[in-house]
Amino acid sequence: MSGTLYGVGVGPGAPDLLTLRADRLIRSARVVAYPAPDTGPSLARQIAADAIPKDAIEIPMIVPMRTERFPAQDVYSNAASEISGHLTVGTDVVVLCEGDPFFFGSFMYLFARLADSHPVEIVPGVSSLGACAAAIRWPLVARNDVMSVIPATLPDDALRTGIHGADAVALMKVGRHLPRVRALIETMGLTQHSGYIARATLSNEVACSLSDAPDTAPYFSMILISKGEDPWLSQHPPFSA
Amino acid sequence: MSGTLYGVGVGPGAPDLLTLRADRLIRSARVVAYPAPDTGPSLARQIAADAIPKDAIEIPMIVPMRTERFPAQDVYSNAASEISGHLTVGTDVVVLCEGDPFFFGSFMYLFARLADSHPVEIVPGVSSLGACAAAIRWPLVARNDVMSVIPATLPDDALRTGIHGADAVALMKVGRHLPRVRALIETMGLTQHSGYIARATLSNEVACSLSDAPDTAPYFSMILISKGEDPWLSQHPPFSA
Repeated sequence: MSGTLYGVGVGPGAPDLLTLRADRLIRSARVVAYPAPDTGPSLARQIAADAIPKDAIEIPMIVPMRTERFPAQDVYSNAASEISGHLTVGTDVVVLCEGDPFFFGSFMYLFARLADSHPVEIVPGVSSLGACAAAIRWPLVARNDVMSVIPATLPDDALRTGIHGADAVALMKVGRHLPRVRALIETMGLTQHSGYIARATLSNEVACSLSDAPDTAPYFSMILISKGEDPWLSQHPPFSA
Repeated sequence: MSGTLYGVGVGPGAPDLLTLRADRLIRSARVVAYPAPDTGPSLARQIAADAIPKDAIEIPMIVPMRTERFPAQDVYSNAASEISGHLTVGTDVVVLCEGDPFFFGSFMYLFARLADSHPVEIVPGVSSLGACAAAIRWPLVARNDVMSVIPATLPDDALRTGIHGADAVALMKVGRHLPRVRALIETMGLTQHSGYIARATLSNEVACSLSDAPDTAPYFSMILISKGEDPWLSQHPPFSA
């Protein structure tokens, strides 16, 4: 009888933003897998570090952090094969996922390879959206607002269309696209409605107006745009609180 | 010295989807406030029930569940006044928020009234987006996907525009709008790409294809549309796993 594959969201960064369910599953895990960049430590593993049993088998999935290389098919195929070996002999496997497993996460690549042959359970987590809104103290959306979530990696035309059509916008994966995206937002007259957040909920979190953002942004950074047409929001324009 | 107002996301419904931080704050709370409908119990309170101290002072904010009446200004003004009384004498107040405090929550109405005069901390929670994606086993967004979050309460034209412009769509607050929205999705040829989820993570959760959805939907229901242009997703079309 197969073990179960758990795709476990570990939240945006602060270890105490793990859910009770995630914490319990990780603490009882015998096999733990997680994505890791080819340089530096795995954020997902760092977030969950205190809960990972010392004697657990760890499977790092080392993926190049360059968008151009996604999906790193071989990495996920090899990891899926190793994970499948554990599942087949009846051992559960916990996969740690930054934020939420199904929100821009790499877990879907394992899911696609393993869900036909093994039981899979998804444990949703706190996503970067809520974490960034909390960091900058902006209600994301209210009442009849439309929100768009847009990768900042897209070309200007796509960004402009997406920003234009929504009341609130989350631009994900800002990173090296910051100068271009900031210029675009300025041409749209939305700089005063825009905030910049990096490493939300971590000790080196940055949350400020877009005009105060640094010149370079890490991969885990976001721009939020709130057009503020809701009168309740406009009572408290950005950064007044 | 003022107490702190905590806006605490309690997640979508399952009590063990509270974060460790939310659980800790609620367990040590002396004053707990939460929204409640004018008929029936408060979902936010039900989710957190096990963690609420028996001797805590409880402040239910009884709000009519009819969209037409939002925002129920008097309810929030009265609650803000009562909460402010506790904060002013140095007592912290924990406000329970379904899902995430700043994602279509009513916490923003308290925030607008109290953030200028008292310290406020926001504790992000698992939102219905991640919970619904997990329930129906669909990756929401991958790589360069654009996602739109759209209240189903909007008129057809606005829904059509929003759906058209995104790779993935979450239609919120479906409720009594289900027949109209379902007909619209059918005219757009997207029924096969659409799933219906109600009461995600609760024991009476429903997650099925839109064509299998019941005729009436509760307030806490969502339609997800995944256009599936991502080849990794299309390896596993909806409902095959």
